[in-house]
Amino acid sequence: MKAACFDGKVMTFDNNYPDPNPGEVLVRVNLAGICGTDLEILAGYMAYDGVLGHEFVGTVEKSDNPELIGKRVVGEINAGCGVCDSCQKGMDRHCPNRTVLGILKRDGAFAEYLSLPEKNLHVIPDGITDEQAVFVEPLAAAFEIKEQISLEPKWSVAVVGDGRLAQLIVRVLKLTCPNLTCFGRHSSKLESLVNTGVKIKVGIEPSDEQSFDLVVEATGSNSGFADTMKLIKPRGTVILKSTIASRENLDLTPTVVNEITLVGSRCGLFKPAIDALSTGIVSVDSMIDSTFPLEKYSEAIEHAKKPDTLKVFLKP
Amino acid sequence: MKAACFDGKVMTFDNNYPDPNPGEVLVRVNLAGICGTDLEILAGYMAYDGVLGHEFVGTVEKSDNPELIGKRVVGEINAGCGVCDSCQKGMDRHCPNRTVLGILKRDGAFAEYLSLPEKNLHVIPDGITDEQAVFVEPLAAAFEIKEQISLEPKWSVAVVGDGRLAQLIVRVLKLTCPNLTCFGRHSSKLESLVNTGVKIKVGIEPSDEQSFDLVVEATGSNSGFADTMKLIKPRGTVILKSTIASRENLDLTPTVVNEITLVGSRCGLFKPAIDALSTGIVSVDSMIDSTFPLEKYSEAIEHAKKPDTLKVFLKP
Repeated sequence: MKAACFDGKVMTFDNNYPDPNPGEVLVRVNLAGICGTDLEILAGYMAYDGVLGHEFVGTVEKSDNPELIGKRVVGEINAGCGVCDSCQKGMDRHCPNRTVLGILKRDGAFAEYLSLPEKNLHVIPDGITDEQAVFVEPLAAAFEIKEQISLEPKWSVAVVGDGRLAQLIVRVLKLTCPNLTCFGRHSSKLESLVNTGVKIKVGIEPSDEQSFDLVVEATGSNSGFADTMKLIKPRGTVILKSTIASRENLDLTPTVVNEITLVGSRCGLFKPAIDALSTGIVSVDSMIDSTFPLEKYSEAIEHAKKPDTLKVFLKP
Repeated sequence: MKAACFDGKVMTFDNNYPDPNPGEVLVRVNLAGICGTDLEILAGYMAYDGVLGHEFVGTVEKSDNPELIGKRVVGEINAGCGVCDSCQKGMDRHCPNRTVLGILKRDGAFAEYLSLPEKNLHVIPDGITDEQAVFVEPLAAAFEIKEQISLEPKWSVAVVGDGRLAQLIVRVLKLTCPNLTCFGRHSSKLESLVNTGVKIKVGIEPSDEQSFDLVVEATGSNSGFADTMKLIKPRGTVILKSTIASRENLDLTPTVVNEITLVGSRCGLFKPAIDALSTGIVSVDSMIDSTFPLEKYSEAIEHAKKPDTLKVFLKP
């Protein structure tokens, strides 16, 4: 099959890449999305080699379950071992032996085909377009926050970041917490939030400091973390939604002195995200940027890297 | 009055230091304790100059409230402004304009006298000795964990550290969570825990990794934080009980990937600590090391710095 492969250093196009695991459901990829994590892997952030890509919508071609054949699906990206304590508790996402689509020991979606266990797949309702369906995975990561903490509608909430994930988080939190501010760096990116009713700020003012009950860090940068710690009230809650690649100059002192609670947050369940797109309570259309053929993965990635770019798709 | 003064660089003894704030309750210091925070301030960790010391027991000499005169008291160390949002909510400990005894803009207990607002003081029952009473402040910091999170008796719990604060935390958590392990570096220090019934380990074995529901970081070192992140289960809770002075090589990635909750924890309310000493459910006697006259503060501090030393007292 055709696949864009990463050998740990560079990406190349392969017309004869081996087909995926025949023991799982075989999915023809309709459309894949480029995520910040893909760019971080390409920058050497994680030791991964293989086919990248973990946001996708596809069509089932082979499955032991005949009802799935021909269905349009998205897929949860963590595949657990099924036998460990985490898996037994339904926490496949935390299985120590898990593989992760396009991220850890499992080829991903920048290819004609991928495979996943049947339990990972979710059929997508007809009302959701392919472009919208690709947002299910990152939108589920945004909904994960609601699974982890009990949001109070009266809270003042800040999201630090204006990237793709940050914008999805804003859309999800807004459903519960109307008093929401997004702190970004790129006015052009923040424009897509203008009609969502959230407050938009480029830079922190002194009156913003220690004034938020909940702050979500979605930049993955040290400066974003430092901004987050400025914004949060004493005894407030911070959601860490991005891994921070650098290990230098991270100051945890305010966490202790101000008794902050930091909650690490990663992948989420797909159902709330599919429901939100299906009912229209979350709209992602203003985040759609452009679609490139898979063969032009290199141009697509360069475009995705630009600070003003929102969601870029690859079409096999 | 006599006081051991720190000018931000060195400590000196002053026989004619100004008496404390006459608008507050005047307390003659019976006994003061040397804490890790004092040693960190002396090492230049915080910008403080004045009289050090925040663990003490004393006798009230002057007060607008005649009932207090002659009473033996300990004192909560944070003095709020009384008018801000935090103070109005009873969170003087998080008042942005607070002073902190011997730590922030308020002279401390390494002196003949100190002053505090009346509301900060707690009368000590006769059954508690002076040495035991000095432990009320750090023991309250240990009890703070119980105020912040709801401990489950079935949890497997680890405390990382074997210092003075770590040992108090072990004693407090043991009251609720019998399945408790203390990970230390100094066998001699850990000996004082032998009769408490907790498991004691020097170093982490592979079987310890990701096996604890709750881990308390009480070393204040990067390596202690790294050990903590090794021990905690995915989705577990970490209490950060010590500020980590270094900002280098702190890796928050596992926090996000394993969806850990980090809870910063500082000073606590005094009542549970006084009650625990009074009823004897917590015993601190095996942590008492030695007492030096205030004039010998320098020897006392050098002794407190040694890795095997537990609680050292100064007697004015």
